[in-house]
Amino acid sequence: MRIGRFQAADGVWQVEFDAAGARVLPPRLSGPGADPPLPAARPLSEGRLLAPVRPGKIVCIGRNYVAHAAELGNTVPGRPLLFLKPGTAVVGPGDTILLPPDSQRVEHEAELAVVIGRRARHLDPHTALDAVLGYTCLNDVTARDLQRSDTQFARGKGFDTFCPLGPWIETELDPSDVRVTCAVNGTLRQDGRTSLMAFDVATLLATISRVMTLEPGDVIATGTPAGVGPLLQGDVVRVQIEGIGVLENPVAEDPDVPRRAPPISQGR
Amino acid sequence: MRIGRFQAADGVWQVEFDAAGARVLPPRLSGPGADPPLPAARPLSEGRLLAPVRPGKIVCIGRNYVAHAAELGNTVPGRPLLFLKPGTAVVGPGDTILLPPDSQRVEHEAELAVVIGRRARHLDPHTALDAVLGYTCLNDVTARDLQRSDTQFARGKGFDTFCPLGPWIETELDPSDVRVTCAVNGTLRQDGRTSLMAFDVATLLATISRVMTLEPGDVIATGTPAGVGPLLQGDVVRVQIEGIGVLENPVAEDPDVPRRAPPISQGR
Repeated sequence: MRIGRFQAADGVWQVEFDAAGARVLPPRLSGPGADPPLPAARPLSEGRLLAPVRPGKIVCIGRNYVAHAAELGNTVPGRPLLFLKPGTAVVGPGDTILLPPDSQRVEHEAELAVVIGRRARHLDPHTALDAVLGYTCLNDVTARDLQRSDTQFARGKGFDTFCPLGPWIETELDPSDVRVTCAVNGTLRQDGRTSLMAFDVATLLATISRVMTLEPGDVIATGTPAGVGPLLQGDVVRVQIEGIGVLENPVAEDPDVPRRAPPISQGR
Repeated sequence: MRIGRFQAADGVWQVEFDAAGARVLPPRLSGPGADPPLPAARPLSEGRLLAPVRPGKIVCIGRNYVAHAAELGNTVPGRPLLFLKPGTAVVGPGDTILLPPDSQRVEHEAELAVVIGRRARHLDPHTALDAVLGYTCLNDVTARDLQRSDTQFARGKGFDTFCPLGPWIETELDPSDVRVTCAVNGTLRQDGRTSLMAFDVATLLATISRVMTLEPGDVIATGTPAGVGPLLQGDVVRVQIEGIGVLENPVAEDPDVPRRAPPISQGR
């Protein structure tokens, strides 16, 4: 089942998507969040897809594919490396990724995203997948230069629009071995399989839920395969995951940001 | 004005606190969040204080006091160092800080917290304080060993209960030079003034809002002065900020966590 959020002239609805991608339907399963369920089927063309969830938190895993860790000069750590992205970074399918003037190197990172379905602490790896509502595509957009210079990832990965998410939550996926790709302007850049993860989804859920309570709508970004590369003004970036679908976003310079950064004056 | 959240037998209310600390009142100013306003004054003894806000995001600043940076062997960076804590870490006044078995060294960090009052992007430092609703006390509890071994701060600072917040939001504070202290079992450990911050509140708000949109209820933790130290089973830790009040929390080992960590098996 594919569930998500749909923006129409008469409001935002929880919907189910039909397999042909032509219609939205009243959802058989309720997603996380307060949007009302669509009362009757209608054509998809009467509105647009939003990010399928507004996450309370986004927990990401760094260096979870050996080849990607290696391409950035790193190794896979001995245990999952956690970091957080802010919810304000989330945008939906078709929304524009905005390049901030403070970075000279913004990159794509195609990832399988896990959407949590129920509150969970201390999950056992053997039953952890029971806490999952479903899966979607996520682009962990990263200002690589700022990620490196700050050492903490929050700024480089936290800009508004740096977390495209969608197109919907697929509730029936087996996440253990699906293809994850990223193409920019039609050229394949990343091409991996989730079977290449150093730590699988169940291990990630057990690890994270030993630290922080997982809540419905929380999103886990499971790391990116090799092949990350730059995003430039005018690009179109397309994350595709086998069994889920396509998340496509255009890229543009942010027109709203004052070019000159505010003065950083150190008090003492 | 002191506004916050109050748990009583008949529900959770937005309230205003009287100066004497004996009564809760219908709030003259609405805080962020969906809790209804208390309809009529009543004694504080009829309920208990909750964390005054449930933040959409918690943006923290590392190494913002020279003496604290130095005590951990660091220097103050050339620009504010951003990291995030998850909202699930928030607890209120009097709630127990739970020591996770995975850490051998959990420490207190007393901090002035800024509560955002309106949606804001690209704030100018000269007018940034207009976006502030008020100020409260925050304890950026940190598993120092895990913070160091992970390098990313998300795990070491992200455990449930690692973000005590309260007791209320003081809307009329001038944040530029107030005393920030932390005592454990009555012994003073941290004693600083916000005038010692490397980057002041307005500079922090301008810096953060150039990256991510600030939303009502978001919390900015402005860094901790020197004197951080361990928290042990049975301790009581008390953060006090001049002009705001006292945030006190007991400390105990987490009874719910399986002592043995789940197996971390690397796929390949």
